[in-house]
Amino acid sequence: MMSGAMQQKQDNVALPVFAAVTLALITILSVWKLKQFKYKLVNEAGVAMFYGLLLGLTVRLIWTDKGEQCPGNTTATNEQENTSDISMVNITPHGHIRNDKRQFSSHPEETFDLQVLFNLFLPPIIFHGAYTLNQKRFIANLGSVLTYAFAGTIISCMCIGACMYGFTKLMPPKEEFLLTHCLLFGAIMSATDPVSVLGLLSDLRVDLDLHMLLFGESVLNDAVAIVLTHAITTYTQMDAGLIFDPTAFLHAFVFFLGVLIGSFLLGLIFTVITALLTKFTRLHENPLLETSVFFLLSWSSYLSAEACGLSGIVAVMFCGLSQARYTVLNLSSEGRARIKQLFEVFNFLGEISIFGYMGYILLKFTCHKFEPVFISGALLSVFLSRAFNIYPLSFLLNLGRTNKIPCKFQHFMIFAGLRGAVAFRLAVKETDTEVTRTIFTTTLLMIGFTIWVLGTAADPMLRRLDIRVGVDPDENQEDHSFEIATERPDTTQGLWHSLDYKYLKPVLTHCGPPLTESLPQCCGVFARVFSSPRVQEDEEEELCEIEAGKNTLDLGKTESQQGSSESDSASEHQEDLLDGDLGLGTAPVHPREASGSSTQL
Amino acid sequence: MMSGAMQQKQDNVALPVFAAVTLALITILSVWKLKQFKYKLVNEAGVAMFYGLLLGLTVRLIWTDKGEQCPGNTTATNEQENTSDISMVNITPHGHIRNDKRQFSSHPEETFDLQVLFNLFLPPIIFHGAYTLNQKRFIANLGSVLTYAFAGTIISCMCIGACMYGFTKLMPPKEEFLLTHCLLFGAIMSATDPVSVLGLLSDLRVDLDLHMLLFGESVLNDAVAIVLTHAITTYTQMDAGLIFDPTAFLHAFVFFLGVLIGSFLLGLIFTVITALLTKFTRLHENPLLETSVFFLLSWSSYLSAEACGLSGIVAVMFCGLSQARYTVLNLSSEGRARIKQLFEVFNFLGEISIFGYMGYILLKFTCHKFEPVFISGALLSVFLSRAFNIYPLSFLLNLGRTNKIPCKFQHFMIFAGLRGAVAFRLAVKETDTEVTRTIFTTTLLMIGFTIWVLGTAADPMLRRLDIRVGVDPDENQEDHSFEIATERPDTTQGLWHSLDYKYLKPVLTHCGPPLTESLPQCCGVFARVFSSPRVQEDEEEELCEIEAGKNTLDLGKTESQQGSSESDSASEHQEDLLDGDLGLGTAPVHPREASGSSTQL
Repeated sequence: MMSGAMQQKQDNVALPVFAAVTLALITILSVWKLKQFKYKLVNEAGVAMFYGLLLGLTVRLIWTDKGEQCPGNTTATNEQENTSDISMVNITPHGHIRNDKRQFSSHPEETFDLQVLFNLFLPPIIFHGAYTLNQKRFIANLGSVLTYAFAGTIISCMCIGACMYGFTKLMPPKEEFLLTHCLLFGAIMSATDPVSVLGLLSDLRVDLDLHMLLFGESVLNDAVAIVLTHAITTYTQMDAGLIFDPTAFLHAFVFFLGVLIGSFLLGLIFTVITALLTKFTRLHENPLLETSVFFLLSWSSYLSAEACGLSGIVAVMFCGLSQARYTVLNLSSEGRARIKQLFEVFNFLGEISIFGYMGYILLKFTCHKFEPVFISGALLSVFLSRAFNIYPLSFLLNLGRTNKIPCKFQHFMIFAGLRGAVAFRLAVKETDTEVTRTIFTTTLLMIGFTIWVLGTAADPMLRRLDIRVGVDPDENQEDHSFEIATERPDTTQGLWHSLDYKYLKPVLTHCGPPLTESLPQCCGVFARVFSSPRVQEDEEEELCEIEAGKNTLDLGKTESQQGSSESDSASEHQEDLLDGDLGLGTAPVHPREASGSSTQL
Repeated sequence: MMSGAMQQKQDNVALPVFAAVTLALITILSVWKLKQFKYKLVNEAGVAMFYGLLLGLTVRLIWTDKGEQCPGNTTATNEQENTSDISMVNITPHGHIRNDKRQFSSHPEETFDLQVLFNLFLPPIIFHGAYTLNQKRFIANLGSVLTYAFAGTIISCMCIGACMYGFTKLMPPKEEFLLTHCLLFGAIMSATDPVSVLGLLSDLRVDLDLHMLLFGESVLNDAVAIVLTHAITTYTQMDAGLIFDPTAFLHAFVFFLGVLIGSFLLGLIFTVITALLTKFTRLHENPLLETSVFFLLSWSSYLSAEACGLSGIVAVMFCGLSQARYTVLNLSSEGRARIKQLFEVFNFLGEISIFGYMGYILLKFTCHKFEPVFISGALLSVFLSRAFNIYPLSFLLNLGRTNKIPCKFQHFMIFAGLRGAVAFRLAVKETDTEVTRTIFTTTLLMIGFTIWVLGTAADPMLRRLDIRVGVDPDENQEDHSFEIATERPDTTQGLWHSLDYKYLKPVLTHCGPPLTESLPQCCGVFARVFSSPRVQEDEEEELCEIEAGKNTLDLGKTESQQGSSESDSASEHQEDLLDGDLGLGTAPVHPREASGSSTQL
């Protein structure tokens, strides 16, 4: 008996975790096996979601519980779910929590699994995406990316909201779909997913600028979608309903700005802490400590933002972007390689876990609310909103860009708007009422549709549109002209460059001009305190130079590619790392082999 | 309101995790800073526990709740804790679980934190310990290690049990301390902790054989202590009480053997799966996949054992030992380095988290039961039992060993019996009654005492005993004679060698003689199926040779050390990895630098 009870306790967590681990293993092996047979169409996210579905089905078949209570059931449509059994958690006399198997079938938003999933795996995924972004390309395309991410997401949200509002009028009137609900769904659906988009792009190796536009947009529009969702919720809670209320709208707008700026600053603060810590201490002598501190501080940016009620994803994204720009320059090469590999593993396993879990919930969650009209409306409006977002914005951007975004790129961008973890995260927060559960179910179905159908069709689509694939991520020279000419006027870029090069770099890293020169006389004390404590060693000098070269004319890269056999392997490796590897998480790094070959020379 | 509720939900996990992360960061930085100032006395475990104490104190001062209910309070000693408030978990009308802040103050055993801690961090710590064990040294000292671990732990358990039973007779008779309770405490206290012992040993770099004896014992006696605890619990539940019941005893003994063998086999099964997977597929072409699969399968050994009611620690330990012996030979060098670094980070962060948590619980848990007699009895009996264990067994072992275990080693081994995570894990399982809570509190105090007092005094003690410290972990030649001569007769080692070399190696790896030769004619089909599918490449051939050399006369090592500048860096690196690095988790690996220097030649 006692041993049985003991076993029961351990089972609580060990068994589901074991199931999840097995699922991840099967996913990894089958994707890898399928890819070996040249099935280019499979992607990890889709396969993980498929196995998740199977697991959910199995669990549901084994534990068939009719006695589910779905909250907010005001209609009599789903009668079988309307029976007793209110408490999903039993409390034993001693106050122990006994996790009921059915616990998250009707309330996914509060469970252990989700909390672990989102706090443990989501930050490294987003961080990895931002951290491995090709900085130079990103800055070159920054204007376009920001336009798509900000204006595009807002257009998309409005467009889906309006469409869905129209569709809900076609539905039986028992459902109380307000405009705010439709806008909420619009905001949720506007978040294209960096995880799946990244998986897709790095598998197919599309054109680098298309890659940057799509990935940059998907990373940044998460932030916008999250903040929009918050803002709409804030607006809703003012009980404004359908009548336009300027106060509530202003409140929502202030909230939008506050969350965005707060999260951005929080991410930046953690970068500054990491950069100063790695600059002024000798942490770089111990790569294990360096890696741990870097990892913990980057993760903290997410956790602290969530704890403050800000957006963790936005914070960790900005943290990743700035860490890759500044802190990386203070790290040892060993530490840099370790950090990259650590985040790579987390990113890989996290992607599989999150998509597997989404598939699982799709069949396990028993309080789904399928509304065929709403679903077909969603299907249509998702494409429509993306067209309304990409085509006009690309037209406007092309007016300013010397190097236009081709039409075929625009077509593909409409196609490649996969939805994923962030949409799920936003939808799962509220499943109390019938309306929110309709939104949740539809979101899950849309995620499944975009991942399976659009993700699989991406490869044939690329061929049809005649967009070149299989591009070497390090191939930089040929479309050189494209990246220098952006739509941004010189003054903005000049301002950014001087802030970055003259002040941020010298304060946070060992690179850039000495602070005593760039700062005015009055800040002499500040300049002396933050000046680099060590004389620049050869390696660092080289690093800074390469970095500087990359930001202007890509000299470092060209040089090293022309003379790769002459240059020593160490600097080559550093550069690869600085280059961000273009987010190709699955590409193997072979520092050993590389150095081995140069040894034989 | 809604946004407040949203925030509330997110706070649930993000805030405590953020506190934990901050705690870990502060620990890392202060230990590292203290070590820079040559304070050799500090260890991560102690500092983490100290900061955990501070956090626990803070939390307790902020949330002062008198309304605690400690289960099983039959006496009136702690009146203030005897007030109402039974349910620690509030259920909202919709069935949401709202984690009350006080939840784990009286019931630590069931909480989120502990489950995550033990399922996430304990397996990598134990795995890392076993995986990085110097295999050759371990096998050379296997007999002694097994004697200490098995006979020693049983002696220790009996001895503490008997002592404590004597001490409980001195206590006021209201407490119902049975002999089985005392034996349970004995079993809990017998588990010397690999995490803290490893930390201590690698910081001080003691003599390699002393290292092996202490670390090997601490890893293996966990297994014995866990199984003993289970067995005693099984025996107790038979209601045998004080009367010796042969049936219950037999049952407990069968249980002991069953759990031990079951866990061992489970660990082995996962190694076989990993080895065959890495041998017969081309996983080694993608280091990220290789690392992920290896990591997940190794972790699975723990989870599946826990899910089956076996001992996860034992399973993951055997898995680590066998993975390091067989699977490692199938991995790519890149994958091998990644796996090592991944487990290193997990081990490092896990150690800090677990000890930090122990300190936290020590002050946060409000249902402590301090029994001065019991505590002082424990203090005495812990030293006494260790003396009864080490001295007689060393005497017996020295009869068989050609190379004796010196007296000073024996003194230090008594001293270095630190307790930690495993003891905590065993004690925290049961805190329902006053007796079990007395045991829990005493265990926590003993862990604190051994970590702080003994851990800090280890360095002066070593100097006093004149045991050499600062030994280079790769220094193998000089005490060569010591390791060949063990107390094991040749036949046993011969049998093991032939099983290992003739059958296991060829089946699981690309090394060893072809199976078609070693297996009898009748197993021809089996031999053909499991034969290495690829012709041995040069690198592998070399790897197997080095490995073979290491097992017999350490030729590979000597050769590479004499001619390190001539041999190419790749094989050198592989060897380092094979050598297991002696569990020096904190020692930086500089493959880049090493290859850089050889490039310049």
